[in-house]
Amino acid sequence: MNELTKVILDESEIPEAWYNIQPDLPEPAPPVLHPGTHQPIGPDDLAPLFPMALIGQEVSQDRYVDIPGAVLDVYRMWRPTPLYRARRLEKALDTPARIYFKYEGVSPVGSHKPNTAVPQAYYNAQEGTKKLTTETGAGQWGSALAFACAQFDLECEVWQVAISFQQKPYRRTLMEIFGATVHSSPSDLTNAGRTIRAQDPESPGSLGIAISEAVEAAASDPSTKYSLGSVLNHVLMHQTVIGEESLKQLAMIEEKPDLLVGCTGGGSNFGGLSFPFIREKLAGKMSPTIRCVEPTASPSLTKGVYAYDFGDTIGMTPLVKMHTLGHDFVPSPIHAGGLRYHGMAPLVSHLKELGLLEAEAIGQVECFERAVQFARAEGIVPAPEPTHAIASTVRAALQAKASGEETVILTALCGHGHFDMGAYRAFLDGGLEDFDYPEEAVRQAMEKIPAVT
Amino acid sequence: MNELTKVILDESEIPEAWYNIQPDLPEPAPPVLHPGTHQPIGPDDLAPLFPMALIGQEVSQDRYVDIPGAVLDVYRMWRPTPLYRARRLEKALDTPARIYFKYEGVSPVGSHKPNTAVPQAYYNAQEGTKKLTTETGAGQWGSALAFACAQFDLECEVWQVAISFQQKPYRRTLMEIFGATVHSSPSDLTNAGRTIRAQDPESPGSLGIAISEAVEAAASDPSTKYSLGSVLNHVLMHQTVIGEESLKQLAMIEEKPDLLVGCTGGGSNFGGLSFPFIREKLAGKMSPTIRCVEPTASPSLTKGVYAYDFGDTIGMTPLVKMHTLGHDFVPSPIHAGGLRYHGMAPLVSHLKELGLLEAEAIGQVECFERAVQFARAEGIVPAPEPTHAIASTVRAALQAKASGEETVILTALCGHGHFDMGAYRAFLDGGLEDFDYPEEAVRQAMEKIPAVT
Repeated sequence: MNELTKVILDESEIPEAWYNIQPDLPEPAPPVLHPGTHQPIGPDDLAPLFPMALIGQEVSQDRYVDIPGAVLDVYRMWRPTPLYRARRLEKALDTPARIYFKYEGVSPVGSHKPNTAVPQAYYNAQEGTKKLTTETGAGQWGSALAFACAQFDLECEVWQVAISFQQKPYRRTLMEIFGATVHSSPSDLTNAGRTIRAQDPESPGSLGIAISEAVEAAASDPSTKYSLGSVLNHVLMHQTVIGEESLKQLAMIEEKPDLLVGCTGGGSNFGGLSFPFIREKLAGKMSPTIRCVEPTASPSLTKGVYAYDFGDTIGMTPLVKMHTLGHDFVPSPIHAGGLRYHGMAPLVSHLKELGLLEAEAIGQVECFERAVQFARAEGIVPAPEPTHAIASTVRAALQAKASGEETVILTALCGHGHFDMGAYRAFLDGGLEDFDYPEEAVRQAMEKIPAVT
Repeated sequence: MNELTKVILDESEIPEAWYNIQPDLPEPAPPVLHPGTHQPIGPDDLAPLFPMALIGQEVSQDRYVDIPGAVLDVYRMWRPTPLYRARRLEKALDTPARIYFKYEGVSPVGSHKPNTAVPQAYYNAQEGTKKLTTETGAGQWGSALAFACAQFDLECEVWQVAISFQQKPYRRTLMEIFGATVHSSPSDLTNAGRTIRAQDPESPGSLGIAISEAVEAAASDPSTKYSLGSVLNHVLMHQTVIGEESLKQLAMIEEKPDLLVGCTGGGSNFGGLSFPFIREKLAGKMSPTIRCVEPTASPSLTKGVYAYDFGDTIGMTPLVKMHTLGHDFVPSPIHAGGLRYHGMAPLVSHLKELGLLEAEAIGQVECFERAVQFARAEGIVPAPEPTHAIASTVRAALQAKASGEETVILTALCGHGHFDMGAYRAFLDGGLEDFDYPEEAVRQAMEKIPAVT
């Protein structure tokens, strides 16, 4: 065949600035509110948890923010990432669609998460932070932050949800290889943890509890700050290196996408891929359909309400306007742990409200069927989260086959599944369960969304 | 800093031919002998197990063998692989040495093994083979062959050593994702397996038994052939894409290595890296020291004898002249399963006898210490096998520091350790054992090396 399989960029072509979509929005996103006063919060409210550089980025109206040289140096360890043409998958599907995927699994921890972990560690180190705390479920975010902290000589302390700490020890080991300290959450180290353990000594933990512990540990020590791996504006901005590189790579082969597809949990991978394309779309340079894919078990964009709600389960964070299933909704135990979130990044939610993107929900059995088909064709075993993007891509490619259209599809393969073999084992053994839309649980959780007038 | 971190080649720069070192050898390697007659074997002896194209490559005197287009198309899924400058490791060691590593972990299964699995599957498919059988321990080779068979619509049947089948289910899952059938060995499917099970129903299996089962299954079905992942001449030749790319990459930055370091088990990764450099050295174009690194627990090159011996444990294969610890020597259970082999590739052994390379042995505790240091600096967690190459590289870099010399070191990072977190867990918990040179076991095993006159 001798046809191009992947588009490779030179190290010199890593983007030198992140793209901030905020000044390009047709109308600004609603402000973040103080949970007590319901008034917009200011920088001082966030200062105990985040360095000023990141607080500034959170509300910045600059279209581009320069990427510091020390961050670029770390990005060079794996960036630019390859853009693949999925020729073998196209052939297996017998589709006239041309399918491209941007592969973030080449990063040190196998996902897109270091794109933001590295600048977060950098800005903290610059401002004198000695230690970062965070929460993690299966460990994708925790391992990314552990790697990033190792690069800037920061301590890293991770509260990992107890059930994952016990049952999925591999990413914990990865975090420890990078020098992080990992606690099972709820722990005895915080008031939040002790309170939960007093109520339930055998608590399996939750992301909400782990957030409370990590935030408490950061707030109680001036040289310690807290780090979040998704949802926030600055996190999505750091991820735009994905979309900026993809734009360059598609331009090199003279392609323009008709459809962009990305999975959404907190929204950082999706925002990173899509925001630079939305910029081009708003400028009239291309007109792709832009599609979020979420699990049927946690369908915030397709079934949630657009309302002010808490970012965490317990209700300690500021109130953000987003698509939410209710902050104490606990999604069914699907394998895509990174998509088990009750809300959505405020910027992604806002863009949905503005009609700039659409969303669909897919069950995990279809996702894993398509992931295995993808792996046999393309060689890469996807993490459970991007199996959703792959399943949606295959749906679109089969639609293209039916209509005979040469649709150009771009999707984000945001991580590999090397640490998720348990999920594939369950699928191959026929033991994977599909979860319907949890109507009653969502209804109950939505009743607890605070009234904001 | 803004200094180059990695050297990237374009897809068009994948080598279009493999390098065959045989015609360049100062004297030819000793022939392979029939185990019964002790006479050199011919193509017909191998025909039940291998396709004619590979048998031809095994004894070829052509310096270059063209890589078929269909193989190049699959190589393009991950090749060319990056060559990294380990700047952060250099800084951590405070060494004037410049350290480069060629990283094969970007392949679909995370190691160098697909470089030969893909052409082996291709030539078999071309000659009408329907199914390939093989053995695997932890599963690195089995998963590479499973991936390759999926690319050429071949069935793949793998006998996996029982203890790994039970205790390390992750690479088994990976093989099954790619569509392979995996049996626990000893199995009830072959005479060899049934014989062992009759003697010991609870047998944990061994690579030797698994080879016997895979070979028997191939020999008893005309449309089934057998595939081996190391040791043989054609396997090492397929791996020379590693060294050829490295030569190009170093030339791009105007570097010549003073020292090449690679780990040796069966010798395929080492041969793949070093043979093109040995060609340059024999041609007087450079003069690097070329160093094999093996585990102290399985030190064939540093402690073995150079003699005709069987390639498998049971004694079914042809006799090959190599450095051997005795074919029924069973190495201690170090975590680098891929280095637990009693012998060495005949070509690597021959080059050692010719004085063209040297060898050292390192214990696994030092290897994992250096691997963790490497991971914190460079972000990549090495598989247990290349931790040996890293430990040797660090030794050389510290020597350079002591002498003040700007030594240029090139090493092969032949795979990542995502599937080997159990080994790192043991190391981090302080539970990793070092094994001394097993003098008495080797002495006993050497007594069983057949007398060939």
